[in-house]
Parts: sequence; structure tokens; C-alpha cells
Amino acid sequence: MTTRDRLLDAAADLFYREGVGVGVEALCRTAGVSKRSMYQLFDSKDEVMAASLERRALAYPKLFLSERYDELSARSRILHVFERLEELSALPEYRGCPFLATQVELKDPEHPASVVARRVKQALTDFFRAEAERGGAADPDLLARRLTLVFDGASARAGAGVETLAGLVVPIATVLLDAAGIEEGACR
Amino acid sequence: MTTRDRLLDAAADLFYREGVGVGVEALCRTAGVSKRSMYQLFDSKDEVMAASLERRALAYPKLFLSERYDELSARSRILHVFERLEELSALPEYRGCPFLATQVELKDPEHPASVVARRVKQALTDFFRAEAERGGAADPDLLARRLTLVFDGASARAGAGVETLAGLVVPIATVLLDAAGIEEGACR
Repeated sequence: MTTRDRLLDAAADLFYREGVGVGVEALCRTAGVSKRSMYQLFDSKDEVMAASLERRALAYPKLFLSERYDELSARSRILHVFERLEELSALPEYRGCPFLATQVELKDPEHPASVVARRVKQALTDFFRAEAERGGAADPDLLARRLTLVFDGASARAGAGVETLAGLVVPIATVLLDAAGIEEGACR
Repeated sequence: MTTRDRLLDAAADLFYREGVGVGVEALCRTAGVSKRSMYQLFDSKDEVMAASLERRALAYPKLFLSERYDELSARSRILHVFERLEELSALPEYRGCPFLATQVELKDPEHPASVVARRVKQALTDFFRAEAERGGAADPDLLARRLTLVFDGASARAGAGVETLAGLVVPIATVLLDAAGIEEGACR
């Protein structure tokens, strides 16, 4: 593993567990990388944060898309995302969606890490919209925004440890899919 | 206004706009209060944060409950909360629900401010549940959890500046109320 990857993995883990306030000292200590090395690779802590989210985003499609994606209806593909969210949120190390948390914590849409986070979440909304369209939703864009809102509410509450998602979030998504007229098996 | 109130108002405003990382120096400077005065009133910054959320919570019922509360059905009372959320989130200074943001940022359910935040949000869920019960929902507790999740997803996304709630969140709440069998005028 390169110094860069070690730094980005430590950053992803540390910022996720402790928040964006983690300092450069603690980051470099945890990564086992000198500050000098860090600043040879990145201009600032902000750039490290952004790059660590980029790296984390690479794993996202695999986390939320079904291995049997090609066999599933649009409705099942969408619901699979929420089934996975229910599963992932039950892990002891779950602290919510790292991209939403970054946006909430930074409170600055122009911060490089906020820009990455927004792009990653937009990709989720785009996925929902494409499947909603495939499934014949009356207003795919609106359904996609509704589903993303539910995804974020679920991840925020579970991440804060105030809610258990099992049996809660899939039914909400189901109600929204029903209301949008996306039926099982209707479309591939 | 007492020194205590001045400190708590500054804290509520500053932590809301900039996050929980704001230091004691900046807080006291903004409030126009000496650190000595602060520490005579509170044991720690954590206690100031908790007390500032308590103070902020006092204004919450008025923000979200209708002035015509007594005349409204359970369904309308619930929808009014989401109508107000749509309105409040359109204000330029809106940064999301301060209680959810505190929980997301602190990542520590035992922090005094997290404890206050959790209690305030539980009161919202309790309100939803009481109205859901009054409105004849099949499972008032489940409906209340669904509505709180939507409230938090909406406030998080609007607060991060990535979503506009007008025309988005009231319809989601409406779909959930419909699915739970709470009809207009059915119950007072």
C-alpha cells in the first residue's frame, strides 16, 4: 500500500469516527505518515479529506447494488439499496452516511470535501431516477429526490444511534414506490 | 438580558452556523463575556452547548405547531409541521435541524448536548405518535418513527444546501399518512 493510500484510509476512518475536526497531527500519527510526506502529497487537510471521500466512494456501488442486478426489476433494484442500508446500519461501527455527515459537519458547500460528497450523493439520486424511469414512475425525478431524502434521514438517525432501521426504511421506500406507481415485475 | 442568556444565545448561533468545533475563545468573544464569567456559570464548553440547545428547544413548539392547533385534525396538525419545515428551510440562514446536526457532529450519544438533542427529537416523535393515535393510525409508533426519519432527512439535505424542500416533504408525509390510514377530518 502506498503512503497516499495509507493516509487516505486513515483519514476516511478517522474523520468518519470522530468528525471533521480531527487535526493533521492526529491524522498523520494514525496513518504512520510524517507531516512532511503528507504535505508533499496534498496541499492541505481539506484536500486529504476530499481525496479520502473519493477513495471511499469507489466502494459504494458494490455496497449498495445487488450482485444479481441484471436479473432484478427496477423496483427490486431500488429496494435493494434500502435493504443494504438496513444491514449496514446494524454494524457496530456504523456512524451514518460518510458523505452526508461531511456535508452536515462542514456547513460549507464550497469545501472540496463537500463538493465530492455532493457528487457522490447526486450519483445515488441519479441511480434512483434512472431506475424510477425504467420502472415507469410518473415523475422519476421527484421519486428519486424523495428516496434520497429517506436514505439520508435513515442514515443520519441510525448513525446518531437514535434509530434502528430494520423493518423501518424498506417499508417507507415501498410506500413511496407504490405511490409512484412502480410495481414489481412491471419493467426491467 | 443576563450574562447567561447572552452566552447561550451566542453559543446557539455560533455552533449552528459553524459546528461543534467552535472554541471557547471564539464563543466568549462573540458573546462579549469573559472566560472567567463563562466558567463561573458552566463547568465546560460541553455544558454550554447542552444549555444552549435547551434554550433553543423552548422556541420549538411555537415554530412547528399551528396557531389554530385546536381546530385542526390530527392529519393537519402533522402536516403543519412539515409545511413549517418547508417554510423555515427556505430562510437564508437555515442550516438544518440544530438538534440533528449536534448529534451527527458530536458522534457521541453520551455527550450532554447529544442527550438534550435526543430528548428534543424524541418529543417530536412523541407528538407525531400522539397525533397518529388520535388520527386512528394502525401503528402510531411506526408512523411516528417514519415521520421523524423524513423530518430529519429533509432538514439534513436542506441544511446542507443540496435540496429544496418546497413541494417535496409535505407530499412525502402525505403519502405516509395515507398509507397509515389517517384521513382528513376522520378524527380530531
